[in-house]
Amino acid sequence: MNYTFSNRISELKPSAIREILKVTQDPNVIPFAAGNPAPEAFPVKEMSEISERIFREMPASALQYGVSEGYMPLRQAVRERMQKKYATGTEEDDVIIVTGAQQGMELTTKCFINEGDGIICESPSFIGSLNCFRSYRANLIGVPMEQDGMDLEKLENALRENDNVKFIYVIPTFQNPTGRVMSLAKREKILELARQYDVMILEDNPYFELRYSGENLPTIKSMDTEGRVIYVGSFSKILSPGIRVGFVLANSAVISKLTVAKQVSDVHTNLMYQMIAHEMLTKYDIDAHIAKVCDMYREKRDAMCDAIEKYFPKECTYERPDGGLFLWCRLPDGYDGVAFCKLCGTRGVMGVPGSSFAIDENEISPYIRLNFSLPSFEQIERGVKIMGDTMREFIG
Amino acid sequence: MNYTFSNRISELKPSAIREILKVTQDPNVIPFAAGNPAPEAFPVKEMSEISERIFREMPASALQYGVSEGYMPLRQAVRERMQKKYATGTEEDDVIIVTGAQQGMELTTKCFINEGDGIICESPSFIGSLNCFRSYRANLIGVPMEQDGMDLEKLENALRENDNVKFIYVIPTFQNPTGRVMSLAKREKILELARQYDVMILEDNPYFELRYSGENLPTIKSMDTEGRVIYVGSFSKILSPGIRVGFVLANSAVISKLTVAKQVSDVHTNLMYQMIAHEMLTKYDIDAHIAKVCDMYREKRDAMCDAIEKYFPKECTYERPDGGLFLWCRLPDGYDGVAFCKLCGTRGVMGVPGSSFAIDENEISPYIRLNFSLPSFEQIERGVKIMGDTMREFIG
Repeated sequence: MNYTFSNRISELKPSAIREILKVTQDPNVIPFAAGNPAPEAFPVKEMSEISERIFREMPASALQYGVSEGYMPLRQAVRERMQKKYATGTEEDDVIIVTGAQQGMELTTKCFINEGDGIICESPSFIGSLNCFRSYRANLIGVPMEQDGMDLEKLENALRENDNVKFIYVIPTFQNPTGRVMSLAKREKILELARQYDVMILEDNPYFELRYSGENLPTIKSMDTEGRVIYVGSFSKILSPGIRVGFVLANSAVISKLTVAKQVSDVHTNLMYQMIAHEMLTKYDIDAHIAKVCDMYREKRDAMCDAIEKYFPKECTYERPDGGLFLWCRLPDGYDGVAFCKLCGTRGVMGVPGSSFAIDENEISPYIRLNFSLPSFEQIERGVKIMGDTMREFIG
Repeated sequence: MNYTFSNRISELKPSAIREILKVTQDPNVIPFAAGNPAPEAFPVKEMSEISERIFREMPASALQYGVSEGYMPLRQAVRERMQKKYATGTEEDDVIIVTGAQQGMELTTKCFINEGDGIICESPSFIGSLNCFRSYRANLIGVPMEQDGMDLEKLENALRENDNVKFIYVIPTFQNPTGRVMSLAKREKILELARQYDVMILEDNPYFELRYSGENLPTIKSMDTEGRVIYVGSFSKILSPGIRVGFVLANSAVISKLTVAKQVSDVHTNLMYQMIAHEMLTKYDIDAHIAKVCDMYREKRDAMCDAIEKYFPKECTYERPDGGLFLWCRLPDGYDGVAFCKLCGTRGVMGVPGSSFAIDENEISPYIRLNFSLPSFEQIERGVKIMGDTMREFIG
């Protein structure tokens, strides 16, 4: 039969990154494209121990239906950790456990966005969130990223010129794809603008604990006294992405609605891994684990930066991030990252073209995003060399 | 701040059953309300063994990001089992693994339904699906259930009178809440009507392998030669619901779109439990496990039927199902199941009022749904006695 898909889905393109991920399952391709953690960073021994213990001591609870809000002890542990360690979350706030941070975006969009409503996004931004917003036919309004976060003048223009903006979507720390950090002054100012124009902020913060240099900055949510910020957190980068466990921390009225949406979406998140995440937070030294992961990734970041200095032509630039998983590289003006990445693909190295993260899907971008967490040191050296050689050829 | 939720979510009520589930976490309440499997039915030893083995042999694969379509070996195993054992699925079909069957409904609705599009539903039907459809502002058109499935005359009227129907939603085997089975003749006829009016069928079949008496019937999907049927299956009732693993089997063009929707929804389903489900299907005797579960549930069904015969007043009737998890009971005309269930709740027994499953949320229903899989034999005896006593009092 001929299928007539809904308007919201028929124009949506598959995520370039997810498609690329399939290619990177080829072990011969050097994987600079994905956003995968290093397998060595997974706390395998600890999770395995916890899993065995749960199977031994309370299998019936772990395998039975749970509630849509999530496993209560995990919700409490998340609240406590965010409150004690990052002063984030108030008495009026609550937590829902979601099937990865991506579901936090999905449920928030479903609960707040009517077709045509505006969402202001950093430009460029994370394609998974952009496509989620697009899947509810939101009107995406891009505001260019500067080194320290959104261009505030353009943000204010966007707020002034668009009546129906529902929220500003930001990844304030080690932004995907740029790796940039929003300054404290901009965090304060964006919250102030949100207040002034009565819109919400969706703060997506999966990378903030992966800091390799520089000083921590407060979350935007930690400055929020009115329940204006919806904070989305993830265990993907500090424990494992395959477990699909994340959380949303927001005013309890918002969490109630997200819960209703989650009931009809997947009922609840895999319960065993909610319980495992809970034990990782409460019975193990998660901070020590994160510190170890940071040590590992710092070396990889440095290795990739060193290789770039060595192999990239001087016309091609890059930004050295203080954390996260990505380097943001740039071809000279006028060159297209898509054509370049395709060429690299044929030579066994995959990066992601910057246009994948553009708000305007037809934009041509000279940028390339490179991941340094997944490849080995050897792959970093070899892959960057191939890219450098290809660049010289590409830019003639 | 004051929150303005989306239209689609602001009118949606939380699922009565999910809310009731919270109450049933009180171990003193006799749980006839939930749809939970018996904890004794979980293959704890097998799943625990498999989990340990995966942690030992391939932890990096299990904890890393996966693809949105799902773990390929599980997709293949599902296709093969459905094809070989139930002649369900063709060469043009494909499988996506979803985070519980509920996500199958969510993704199908998101991919096919524009606001106001029609979905024809059995009346009564599963509240989780109904609320999912409502969350996309579908127009729900109820067709009354007869003992052998939908009233076909009324179905044809509904198809004739509504232009924009996208699909017919059915739970053909051991329907939730009625426990009824759609006859072979009606399965054939509904598919024929779908063809005639060029609509799809969403076949939700989580219970069909839990058969305690009578003969198996073919799935509607097994008669589908045109890709008209989207088939949703679940491991919740045969392995464990807490793992949140289900699947959709449909034409590959449909699966492609569902995959795009899943990418932005939760990226993929918990990978470890996809791998565990795969091993349960391929390295263990899943059919022997299901047979064991059926033996257990058959006894519980019989125990509940016996107790009802013993304790319910004759004015209250019930239907003895050939499988599934539920008994469908009925107060005399004019009595309200909601008031009755509330009264029972105060006496420590929880059932679900039939109105929870109504297409018209304001309908008053004399029905009550009772679950027999979760309560112990002792609870069945004691709970049915309390209900019977309460009935006598309630109907005066």
